[in-house]
Amino acid sequence: MCGRRGATLPAPSGEVKQGAHDCAADARPALFFGIMKNPAKKNAFYAQSGGVSAVINASACGVIETAQRHGRHIGKLYAGRDGIVGALTENLIDVSRESAATIRGLKYTPAGAFGSARFKLKGLEQNRAEYERLIEVFRAHDIGYFFYNGGNDSMDTALKVSQIGATLGYPITCVGIPKTVDNDLPHTDCCPGFGSVAKYIAVSTLEAGLDVASMARTSTKVFVLEVMGRHAGWIAAAGGLAGKNSKEPPHIILFPELPFEPEKFLAQVKHSVTQYGYCVVVVSEGAAYADGKFVADAGTTDAFGHTQLGGVAPVIAHMIREAHGYKYHWAVADYLQRAARHIASRVDVEQAYAVGKAAVELAVKGVNAVMPTIVRRASRPYKWSIGHVPLAQVANVEKKLPRSFITADGFGITAACRRYLEPLIEGEAPPPYKHGVPQYVRIRGVLVRRKLKTPFKI
Amino acid sequence: MCGRRGATLPAPSGEVKQGAHDCAADARPALFFGIMKNPAKKNAFYAQSGGVSAVINASACGVIETAQRHGRHIGKLYAGRDGIVGALTENLIDVSRESAATIRGLKYTPAGAFGSARFKLKGLEQNRAEYERLIEVFRAHDIGYFFYNGGNDSMDTALKVSQIGATLGYPITCVGIPKTVDNDLPHTDCCPGFGSVAKYIAVSTLEAGLDVASMARTSTKVFVLEVMGRHAGWIAAAGGLAGKNSKEPPHIILFPELPFEPEKFLAQVKHSVTQYGYCVVVVSEGAAYADGKFVADAGTTDAFGHTQLGGVAPVIAHMIREAHGYKYHWAVADYLQRAARHIASRVDVEQAYAVGKAAVELAVKGVNAVMPTIVRRASRPYKWSIGHVPLAQVANVEKKLPRSFITADGFGITAACRRYLEPLIEGEAPPPYKHGVPQYVRIRGVLVRRKLKTPFKI
Repeated sequence: MCGRRGATLPAPSGEVKQGAHDCAADARPALFFGIMKNPAKKNAFYAQSGGVSAVINASACGVIETAQRHGRHIGKLYAGRDGIVGALTENLIDVSRESAATIRGLKYTPAGAFGSARFKLKGLEQNRAEYERLIEVFRAHDIGYFFYNGGNDSMDTALKVSQIGATLGYPITCVGIPKTVDNDLPHTDCCPGFGSVAKYIAVSTLEAGLDVASMARTSTKVFVLEVMGRHAGWIAAAGGLAGKNSKEPPHIILFPELPFEPEKFLAQVKHSVTQYGYCVVVVSEGAAYADGKFVADAGTTDAFGHTQLGGVAPVIAHMIREAHGYKYHWAVADYLQRAARHIASRVDVEQAYAVGKAAVELAVKGVNAVMPTIVRRASRPYKWSIGHVPLAQVANVEKKLPRSFITADGFGITAACRRYLEPLIEGEAPPPYKHGVPQYVRIRGVLVRRKLKTPFKI
Repeated sequence: MCGRRGATLPAPSGEVKQGAHDCAADARPALFFGIMKNPAKKNAFYAQSGGVSAVINASACGVIETAQRHGRHIGKLYAGRDGIVGALTENLIDVSRESAATIRGLKYTPAGAFGSARFKLKGLEQNRAEYERLIEVFRAHDIGYFFYNGGNDSMDTALKVSQIGATLGYPITCVGIPKTVDNDLPHTDCCPGFGSVAKYIAVSTLEAGLDVASMARTSTKVFVLEVMGRHAGWIAAAGGLAGKNSKEPPHIILFPELPFEPEKFLAQVKHSVTQYGYCVVVVSEGAAYADGKFVADAGTTDAFGHTQLGGVAPVIAHMIREAHGYKYHWAVADYLQRAARHIASRVDVEQAYAVGKAAVELAVKGVNAVMPTIVRRASRPYKWSIGHVPLAQVANVEKKLPRSFITADGFGITAACRRYLEPLIEGEAPPPYKHGVPQYVRIRGVLVRRKLKTPFKI
């Protein structure tokens, strides 16, 4: 009862649509709960996993509100405190103890309201105890649905849970919910969380670019913005949406997909300053030399001889001053970019909610071991729908920026990339404000009484 | 005809109000242009000075739209390309060549649309040539009004121009327009530009704080955000608006007004992590030890033995890990904070426009060598009006955060500080968006034909 259960599913809107093309072959109806007359009512477990985003709580909101509408299949909904760790330690948050207003508020509240964790369950052979513990907790709380909201690693975990459940004679319907600001999950057109970071980076690059342009003739000539995305350059590419052509910032983007070549880069900086009067650089934290060594790892030491303090932006900026003597500024947005719900993309918020909703709709139909995907129907105007793909196809696969999305010189984005990215940052969805700051919600987080006598050490 | 001209002025709204109390003593009516029947019509010059902000163009918009309504006194309005440098080099932008839509768009466009410069004119004795050149350019273009939009240094320049004009027999009405994200100008309740940075820092601290809280039990426990304000802690203080009490982020603010004491600080970090599970630190770039040495200047060297790459945030974060072993993240917002028009404070935008408008209204009444000020009438609900103060009282004076605004332990803001800050970040004023990014305007920047034969080297 795992791995390969799948079916043609009703779209979240209710109308019947095909699953995404890329999973159709694998989505064979094995057991079709959707037509069972009285499927056993079970409780559900939802957990947030990995680095959080501006819209992961919107997915949570989609899960919760949809589960509440499926009371025939889903009893209680529990959320893991700190993700999967909450399941292992039996720290289960009773979602029904939160007010409807708080649940609604999750749609505009950034970060992981229930707590998230970077905790990857090892292979079944290496750590069978953890999987058995999970099943033990699920059994104790009559949990029949497992919703796991995360990235590549999390999809792997969700897949394994569905497998071990079957092995241990406790079948559980596992549905992954895509979430990653890195946008590197395969088989989905984009990942909830990415559109909002992309919008933040595009807007910030535009604004900082205007700042530098204001003063470049008499002062700062170079600005370097470091962005997230250690292995994939999607976020860096989004900086490219700030300008319409190579004259406008960012003049240079450094992608982790291409080797950093200092001489070529420095020549391009000089070209930009000479031609346009200034140079704005967007650099991925994962920018690396041809030998794989990160640019950030510049051999910098502090007064005590300890290695570098981190940050590729200051390294790059310093390199430019050494070579050309230009006055520079640099910024490292770090968490500010992925938590920036105030400038979230409306499309991203809607998609985050939709995949949460679809996950529940898939699960109550007995579609197991899948992940809802976002399917692009058209770019201009943008049209999308929800599909799904088997977890086995997603787990541990990383989708990098294709070479065709990077200009020939390696420093910019192509028209194809722009066509892909633009719809994802479309629209604004501001949170409510009071006294000048957003009114984000906080959950009460009431824990369910433990049923197991044995504690579990992580 | 300089320095001391002043009068009871009509408020920008038209109704007669008293000038701000702090300048009343100095505002003696010497020459009262406002009652002259046919004052000579003169051209006007406007320049942006120093570091730009999210709302300095809103002040420009106030100047331009108001000047257009005073055609009886003001002929052409010229803007200096790159601030005062544009006057010295006779690079004057003809503002009448910009469309009304562009001028309106300045109200929501960040940075300095006409170009700004960090260029401080030296004392009259040291560099008389520069002042004489200014007057030469003003005379050539029949400029009788000088509007200078900047901070402390700029108010000093505006004062000197009014003095040298009188000395050289070319009287010119000089009005300063306050602008500084640092909020350190005296005699005005606040400075346009500050409210928007304050809002950005408050919102960013709130959002990043939620991010850290999500993952602190299993991952990152410390987050350090570096903010601007090298000499005054106003911007750092604004981070305090993210939380309602000491339990909520930011748990620690490091102000440049107080000496940085590593042991006391590290103990507070530990206290915060122990008590609340995590610690969010907002640190001013100007944080310094008791001996005046900047914390950022940590003696860090790169692989070539060059001194540190800058940034107090990584230094502080590293210090915490050395002492306590906590996993950390850090961010340096740099230009992102002062250019962030997308999250500008509505109050700030309105005040920026109002001081630009008031500057013109003062000037056409012959009120010389003054700066419009923002006068707080009440905090809750917030009420403000426009006053004015002689430039001589503003020039080169720096207003620091009072000790009464910092909690006894030195790490937080008091209720008095909150009462002061809160109204300044009130309200949102989002720019128009298209394809997901703000539609900021760019000026055409058509230069006036030069009239002088002698070029001027800066």
